[in-house]
Amino acid sequence: MYPKSIKNLIESFKYFPGIGEKTAERLAFSVLNMEDDEIKMISDSLLSIKKNLKRCSICNNLCESDICSICDDKLRDSNTLCVVEDPKTIFLIEKTGLYHGYYHVLSGLISSFDGISPEKLNIHKLIERIENNSFKEVIIAVKPCIEGEMTALYINNILSGMNVSVTRLASGIPMGADMDYVDALTLERAFENRKNIS
Amino acid sequence: MYPKSIKNLIESFKYFPGIGEKTAERLAFSVLNMEDDEIKMISDSLLSIKKNLKRCSICNNLCESDICSICDDKLRDSNTLCVVEDPKTIFLIEKTGLYHGYYHVLSGLISSFDGISPEKLNIHKLIERIENNSFKEVIIAVKPCIEGEMTALYINNILSGMNVSVTRLASGIPMGADMDYVDALTLERAFENRKNIS
Repeated sequence: MYPKSIKNLIESFKYFPGIGEKTAERLAFSVLNMEDDEIKMISDSLLSIKKNLKRCSICNNLCESDICSICDDKLRDSNTLCVVEDPKTIFLIEKTGLYHGYYHVLSGLISSFDGISPEKLNIHKLIERIENNSFKEVIIAVKPCIEGEMTALYINNILSGMNVSVTRLASGIPMGADMDYVDALTLERAFENRKNIS
Repeated sequence: MYPKSIKNLIESFKYFPGIGEKTAERLAFSVLNMEDDEIKMISDSLLSIKKNLKRCSICNNLCESDICSICDDKLRDSNTLCVVEDPKTIFLIEKTGLYHGYYHVLSGLISSFDGISPEKLNIHKLIERIENNSFKEVIIAVKPCIEGEMTALYINNILSGMNVSVTRLASGIPMGADMDYVDALTLERAFENRKNIS
């Protein structure tokens, strides 16, 4: 029904997660109203992203040089290492400005369902870093789900006896959430981890 | 914070309507998981869309040749002409499979607010088509808003005395809608246009 070039563009947008037929149509038609140089810019940034990005040889973060800007920053707190599933979490934590230590990207979580064993994750490098540096605390900042729990427990086990304390981000009710919409498991965690009002 | 190429891609996605910071970030990161040939395909379809698309010299629809496939189809009902704001509506109506006549794309609606006068729309060509063909009915299928009403009234006026009946798509409560969410104006229209249950 649609001319071929519109149809192709609609199909293209459907490659993105969470974009269905309707949204893809809306996006495709919006391209018709864009300036040629805008379209060129979008296309260029799509094509260049995988070419320009590498993995940091220390922490496995995404970066455009061999070592990411965080690992390269000698002024950061060398006592703490924050373990994350993927680079996106690093950017999220960095945005808060609260954490000043270093990071380590696992590139996944242990999952028996998806067949991801610990060997497939970037854990050997984590052990190496703990051995060769003077980190005092390893903060595990992976999402609180079965895979996250399993990964956190595994890392805690493997680092036991290495003279480093292993912590995990607190689980509980998100700030601003309506109690009506808090699920049972989160509520259970929030009860378990309740704190004195200081 | 983000490496430059990720930042550029996030900014690129924000050119699309309805895409904010969070969605742009999600889309940009999803590109990292795509295959190179998928990215190439998306980029190609973005670049080719404006190159390949023309306007039909008869109805002003989007197409890849001089005359669109609908105007080129001599088997369609030559009694009815459906007037739409933009080509997207044509594709929507064609999807229903209910209408078999021809179309005419105005490329906009009369709007005193946006300074769009009737001369800026593709109306002279509409008059020409009515004069040179044997259309019996002109169906105005523009959205029911102030601009749509003004445009419909203007076309009705200008076509009066041209031996063609001018109709307008019915306004009312959309199918499946919850009465709680129907606005007052729509409800007013639905009352005005109420029909005998047959």
